[in-house]
Amino acid sequence: MPEAASAAAVRATIGASEFDRDTAVTRRAPGVYDLDLSAGWTIINAVNGGYLLAVLGRALGDALPHPDPFTISAHYLTASRPGPAVVRTETVRTGRTLSTGQASLFQYDDEGNEVERIRVLASYGDLDALPDDVRTSAKPPVIPPMDQCFGPEDGPAPVEGSSAITDRLMLKLDPATLGWALGQPSGRGEMRAWFGLADGRDADPLSLLLAVDALPPTAFELGLKGWVPTVELTAHVRCRPAPGPLRVAITTRNLAGGFLEEDAEVWDSADRLVAQSRQLARVRLG
Amino acid sequence: MPEAASAAAVRATIGASEFDRDTAVTRRAPGVYDLDLSAGWTIINAVNGGYLLAVLGRALGDALPHPDPFTISAHYLTASRPGPAVVRTETVRTGRTLSTGQASLFQYDDEGNEVERIRVLASYGDLDALPDDVRTSAKPPVIPPMDQCFGPEDGPAPVEGSSAITDRLMLKLDPATLGWALGQPSGRGEMRAWFGLADGRDADPLSLLLAVDALPPTAFELGLKGWVPTVELTAHVRCRPAPGPLRVAITTRNLAGGFLEEDAEVWDSADRLVAQSRQLARVRLG
Repeated sequence: MPEAASAAAVRATIGASEFDRDTAVTRRAPGVYDLDLSAGWTIINAVNGGYLLAVLGRALGDALPHPDPFTISAHYLTASRPGPAVVRTETVRTGRTLSTGQASLFQYDDEGNEVERIRVLASYGDLDALPDDVRTSAKPPVIPPMDQCFGPEDGPAPVEGSSAITDRLMLKLDPATLGWALGQPSGRGEMRAWFGLADGRDADPLSLLLAVDALPPTAFELGLKGWVPTVELTAHVRCRPAPGPLRVAITTRNLAGGFLEEDAEVWDSADRLVAQSRQLARVRLG
Repeated sequence: MPEAASAAAVRATIGASEFDRDTAVTRRAPGVYDLDLSAGWTIINAVNGGYLLAVLGRALGDALPHPDPFTISAHYLTASRPGPAVVRTETVRTGRTLSTGQASLFQYDDEGNEVERIRVLASYGDLDALPDDVRTSAKPPVIPPMDQCFGPEDGPAPVEGSSAITDRLMLKLDPATLGWALGQPSGRGEMRAWFGLADGRDADPLSLLLAVDALPPTAFELGLKGWVPTVELTAHVRCRPAPGPLRVAITTRNLAGGFLEEDAEVWDSADRLVAQSRQLARVRLG
């Protein structure tokens, strides 16, 4: 048996990893893609919204003339379930620098009728074609070294329900934002973590769409429990990420009227701000 | 002549103001609305993106079972011009608390063919039905009193081109974010202002869609000149605004690769964070 086949020693690569296989789509006809939503990306029994966004992002990347999602806005309509699905895309406009597309993910009801799960609008471009000017005033989040941070494997799962996604992520939370797991939420709407894929696959624009919605919700640190379903999430991918772990910081400034916004910033190992997102989510005040 | 008819003394009201007339849509058929884009809301010769968003927001508010835009994402495709237009809406999903719709605004080319200008996805709800819990950590922006702030009427227009919109807005910029107008941009991606409609009409959810895109671009304070076209803008309306002037703060953290994000917060006179937005815009580095 060749040395490279020793599972623990093999780092997965972009294009040949579990994330790539589980977000793969098969073109059935122009703009129509079949796929199977994996049960491996569930969080508290629900299919993770960032994983779903990556699936739609992959289909649009195939359908549009530009490869990379620059800005993608998703409205979540009904709860997705692991299993067969179809994505239908529409090319809205093609330009020299950007093209715009729309996509919907459908599953099937008991009679086999299509039920729409998510609809997205997105503008795509080519990250590699951008000039390399950077005039950002943002600073990377300050997170302790990875070995001083904590993941789901470091303690009993604090949340009920199957969360298969935790096996597929390298997620190490800043202890300063872990009060919720000890029954002592900080009251601040902040969560910070080191983020990667557990099999060592490096980040790319599609996995950034996963990264923006993969941390425990800020609502936990605000003292809320239970499900915080996303109504809408918009992500901007600003740069192709360098190899190595990402840092993700999410922030909520306004919890009001049963809704909250959650802003995410994703930084790569080269200290580039590679993605930003904002979502509107509903909260159950308990 | 009755006293109230003295023009200067009459405050316009919600539903009977220039903004309401200029965003009015006429239902031609279910989900199809005719309208005329007013030349009164141009900025540097372009139709203001927030005004366009308000027009689409009004059409969707008629088409959907819920009245208020909770989250609306717009992708700007081609430049709109003053004149006739049609909005076509689609009801994507209706639920008890939220309904989701899509809308596109079209104009006509020389042969009379429809050309799509903007496409939006939006989820609507009823702001008046929300519980009044507020657990926000955000603080209103600190802006000097209005009489210490400056509007377009206080100096020569620093930007070339027709900007009819300035006659219709009450816009008073914080002097701390006015360096660009004096040829001394601060280098910080910040702009703050008091905001209202010039005819005294109070704010409502639709005029908040205007407010989030009505200030001079943060790019000016970053030392850039010229046009900063919006690729995509998503706005969340979080609360029905109280009467009185609004405070708007916009911020850019990441100017890179020829793109920037611009975040807006809108606060009402009761110190409620009533709207948040983020847009991705292209910059011309000059």
